[in-house]
Amino acid sequence: MRIAQVAPLFERVPPVAYGGTERVVAYLTDALVELGHDVTLFATGDAQTQAKLVPAAQRSLRLDQACTDQMAPQVLQLELVSQVAHRFDVIHFHTGFLHLPLARHLAAPSVTTMHGRLDSPELVPLMREFTDAPFVSISNHQRRPFPGARWCRTVYHGLPPQLLPFKSRPGGYVAFVGRISPEKRVDRAIAIAGRAGLELRVAAKIDAVDREYFTREIEPLMRQPHVRYLGEIGDHEKSALIGGARALLFPIDWPEPFGMVVIEALSCGTPVLAWPCGSVPELIEPGVNGWIVNSIDEAVEALARVTAIDRAACRASFERRFTADRMARDYVGVYQRLRESSRGGFEARTA
Amino acid sequence: MRIAQVAPLFERVPPVAYGGTERVVAYLTDALVELGHDVTLFATGDAQTQAKLVPAAQRSLRLDQACTDQMAPQVLQLELVSQVAHRFDVIHFHTGFLHLPLARHLAAPSVTTMHGRLDSPELVPLMREFTDAPFVSISNHQRRPFPGARWCRTVYHGLPPQLLPFKSRPGGYVAFVGRISPEKRVDRAIAIAGRAGLELRVAAKIDAVDREYFTREIEPLMRQPHVRYLGEIGDHEKSALIGGARALLFPIDWPEPFGMVVIEALSCGTPVLAWPCGSVPELIEPGVNGWIVNSIDEAVEALARVTAIDRAACRASFERRFTADRMARDYVGVYQRLRESSRGGFEARTA
Repeated sequence: MRIAQVAPLFERVPPVAYGGTERVVAYLTDALVELGHDVTLFATGDAQTQAKLVPAAQRSLRLDQACTDQMAPQVLQLELVSQVAHRFDVIHFHTGFLHLPLARHLAAPSVTTMHGRLDSPELVPLMREFTDAPFVSISNHQRRPFPGARWCRTVYHGLPPQLLPFKSRPGGYVAFVGRISPEKRVDRAIAIAGRAGLELRVAAKIDAVDREYFTREIEPLMRQPHVRYLGEIGDHEKSALIGGARALLFPIDWPEPFGMVVIEALSCGTPVLAWPCGSVPELIEPGVNGWIVNSIDEAVEALARVTAIDRAACRASFERRFTADRMARDYVGVYQRLRESSRGGFEARTA
Repeated sequence: MRIAQVAPLFERVPPVAYGGTERVVAYLTDALVELGHDVTLFATGDAQTQAKLVPAAQRSLRLDQACTDQMAPQVLQLELVSQVAHRFDVIHFHTGFLHLPLARHLAAPSVTTMHGRLDSPELVPLMREFTDAPFVSISNHQRRPFPGARWCRTVYHGLPPQLLPFKSRPGGYVAFVGRISPEKRVDRAIAIAGRAGLELRVAAKIDAVDREYFTREIEPLMRQPHVRYLGEIGDHEKSALIGGARALLFPIDWPEPFGMVVIEALSCGTPVLAWPCGSVPELIEPGVNGWIVNSIDEAVEALARVTAIDRAACRASFERRFTADRMARDYVGVYQRLRESSRGGFEARTA
């Protein structure tokens, strides 16, 4: 199939450091190429991809200090897609909502993957106007605010299987990976590890908005001897850190639409101990690849049982459900159905 | 004619305080209604207008603290315009570049007024893709970065003639009205008034980004006895302040595409002393409604001659060139030519 992938322009594809959406687009695009499809990636000029690249800006906007107007390249990107839409069997947008009014007029069917949470009130009148726009959710939970939208499918994110290799023998510590922010609850991770008598290694970035929270609430907790703060780390260190952990702690307190680090852990064979928020119940199979807990007490208890979990079974759950190849095949199924039911825009409302 | 006006959603139409674009849209829309046209305004629900109102958000985004996603209402607005495009003879966008990829597909001709400066490098590739999109400039100077764009006309902004009434006898002070920011050069105004032995009244808001500049550079200058700082003022106070001034000082140091306060002064009959940046040479007729100067020395000298300028001639220059009625008639001319040459999108490239 001739497939267009339309990425956000904020981070590189794949991102240099953080950046969830652009990372997924990178893995998906390369996996589609490997399946033999003819893929064109609309992204920034610094993207690294096996697909044909159509840049709408030279460099990712977050890295480009000279860029004073971030909207202009995004508008340009939409126009570039629009001009060649007829050359594609399907156009896959990852650009939020920006393209929706235009997508209705395009000369090819399109689908949009929602990458963020959908519970903000501004989306209600918008989604009311786009009941015919085909969407893909990244977890079933993510759909809850809009059960009546035209959901084609949930497609869970996937990773290249060699990215975070399986590690059969972990070290004696547990890990926390993410942002330091109130909804990520690193404070819970610190408490759990402390009560379990285990070292906690924390790899996390601190956004400017969370700096005060870090200083006031988290930094004092971090001074405890069982906590080791590593700052923000790259892909290679992440693999070593997560692979070496006895368990990943994922004590989130918000409806995270997809927990990327959960499947990163499973790729290493590392079981995950998580609170049942957002996508978690869809990713964790209790006793097979981790445990779902509702309190510090339950978490400490589960951690005592975590060695009962077979790390090879964790990796197997990853290979079965969370590889980039599986993600790409799921999307190809979505594309094929769209192609059968529509020649452009959102015209085929029966799909 | 059946005319759609599409306003930005950031400020109310008209704005509660500051907000250039939304103010112009308000005056234009009401003046078009007064000319007998059938006008629909796409704006926020708190707009005050004589036209039919189609809201894309309940309240202007800058006032809505609860709004966490400012893009969603803007996208919704584009979709609402798109759905009823066929009902209009012309659609007039004031929304920057956001709508351009969509406007190409609309079932009515459209035109876009550029309200900002156009010299940022991100616009170069964007404008290259939209050489067929009809634009209106708000000064000839504004066009300079893109002489090859499809400029339909320059339409200078206009004000309702009763908004800032003519005042024949000024007080003994001079005025500065605008933001406190490096490119507005209030420091020059302070120096000019000081050397001329005149009181300077400053009505200006200070944006967060300019707070440090104000504290470091301007506040010490403001402590001089000839300077009176009034803070940010409303429309009524503005009329009294500008109308009572012997001259308005407009010592700008940037290519301002249109100096709104210049025509506010002329409406009061107050002559303007300005540096020749941006639109200034197009607005000021030296010796008739003000003076154009290139240095503090020249400004002090011109200020000594300013009583030679007839305030009634200043007002006459306003009534001839800068009323909302004249602005609306100019735009109607643009709309008529578009309507004759196009049935939708940007298809008629010969216009």
